[in-house]
Amino acid sequence: MKKSKAVVLLSGGLDSAVTLAVAKAEGVLPHALSFSYGQRHAVEIQSAKKVARALGAKKHLVMDIALDKIGGSALTDAFAVPKDRPASVLSEKIPVTYVPARNTIFLSIALGWAEVLGAEVIYLGANAVDFSGYPDCRPEYIEAFERMANLAVKAAVEKRMHIRIRAPLIHLSKARIIQKGMALGVDFSITHSCYDPTPAGLACGRCDSCRLRRRGFQEAGLTDPLHYAS
Amino acid sequence: MKKSKAVVLLSGGLDSAVTLAVAKAEGVLPHALSFSYGQRHAVEIQSAKKVARALGAKKHLVMDIALDKIGGSALTDAFAVPKDRPASVLSEKIPVTYVPARNTIFLSIALGWAEVLGAEVIYLGANAVDFSGYPDCRPEYIEAFERMANLAVKAAVEKRMHIRIRAPLIHLSKARIIQKGMALGVDFSITHSCYDPTPAGLACGRCDSCRLRRRGFQEAGLTDPLHYAS
Repeated sequence: MKKSKAVVLLSGGLDSAVTLAVAKAEGVLPHALSFSYGQRHAVEIQSAKKVARALGAKKHLVMDIALDKIGGSALTDAFAVPKDRPASVLSEKIPVTYVPARNTIFLSIALGWAEVLGAEVIYLGANAVDFSGYPDCRPEYIEAFERMANLAVKAAVEKRMHIRIRAPLIHLSKARIIQKGMALGVDFSITHSCYDPTPAGLACGRCDSCRLRRRGFQEAGLTDPLHYAS
Repeated sequence: MKKSKAVVLLSGGLDSAVTLAVAKAEGVLPHALSFSYGQRHAVEIQSAKKVARALGAKKHLVMDIALDKIGGSALTDAFAVPKDRPASVLSEKIPVTYVPARNTIFLSIALGWAEVLGAEVIYLGANAVDFSGYPDCRPEYIEAFERMANLAVKAAVEKRMHIRIRAPLIHLSKARIIQKGMALGVDFSITHSCYDPTPAGLACGRCDSCRLRRRGFQEAGLTDPLHYAS
């Protein structure tokens, strides 16, 4: 039987790599989509390319979109990425690393590509447990996007397809995500999580994303293969 | 009193020019947003710049996004734009000039910019009467987008703002849109509607968009200031 196609949003980070592995395990033909959006950690695109190759994505499309023209985030602007924040504050409020409407923009472009490919599922590595600060990672947001998507595109309106947004990690802790990835053979040494890498591309070890990743590996009882600057 | 800001999607076409004029008349400070998305009628960006200037947009941001990498449309692909179609078929089915998820992609980026600006309204020149073929121009789509948007962005989730998508032309005929624009002082000679302009940038006069525009002026009893190739 011919496999059905799916679009997988792939940042090059840990969560999206596991999501791609889940998509493969679920039997779809994954088409990976990454964005160069003016992020200070543009090195993640290189990781995305390695992950797409390693996990056998059928295609990998990298779209450029200069969200730094819009600004409003520590990831695209010149303001500082917070460091060494205690775990207790991580989920208290929406952090400055939030990028305005990022998942909406990425999912919209994924939606356009899905329609052209005839792919009925878009995989997204959103997670609402650890690091639950981002509003566009919550189940109610994802449901609302899916509803809108099925009113937006020709293929859905003509009833030839029904678009589904699948976020398989949404209720998992970082430790569980790492364990799942290990079980599916994800090579975490090629993933990139850091928001503020050194000029040489080394993970800082101190931003929220590095801290959550390290804690995740610790809680999972596994060794993080990444080298950190500190 | 300080005027509130709004984002206005501005293609350089007739409808979006009138929409910008309506936004101004409604007392907001309009911030125009245009897209260079690989459209074959990229000349419309020049029109958008003229319109933004003429109608006094506070800012005008042009974003590049290569939707031709995704394809699936006569506007971004090498396949032909239909010509000389009788008016009776124009609204029969979704035409090949449909661009997958275009309004969703444009509105998403507008949403990000609106959040950064603190703008609570996004104006869109969608129209569901003449040329009703595009699914992402229907009121039910716009309502679903608005609902999703208020779950997506930090400013809405923290209750500092409520995002509204305003489509003031949605129930108007092309003739009524033209009359409204005239009343608001829109200079239609600087707008651009054609999907398939000549190399010199002249409107073809025969694509669906040109035909609807010409019929609109005719029905409005007004003279179209544009020069057409045929």
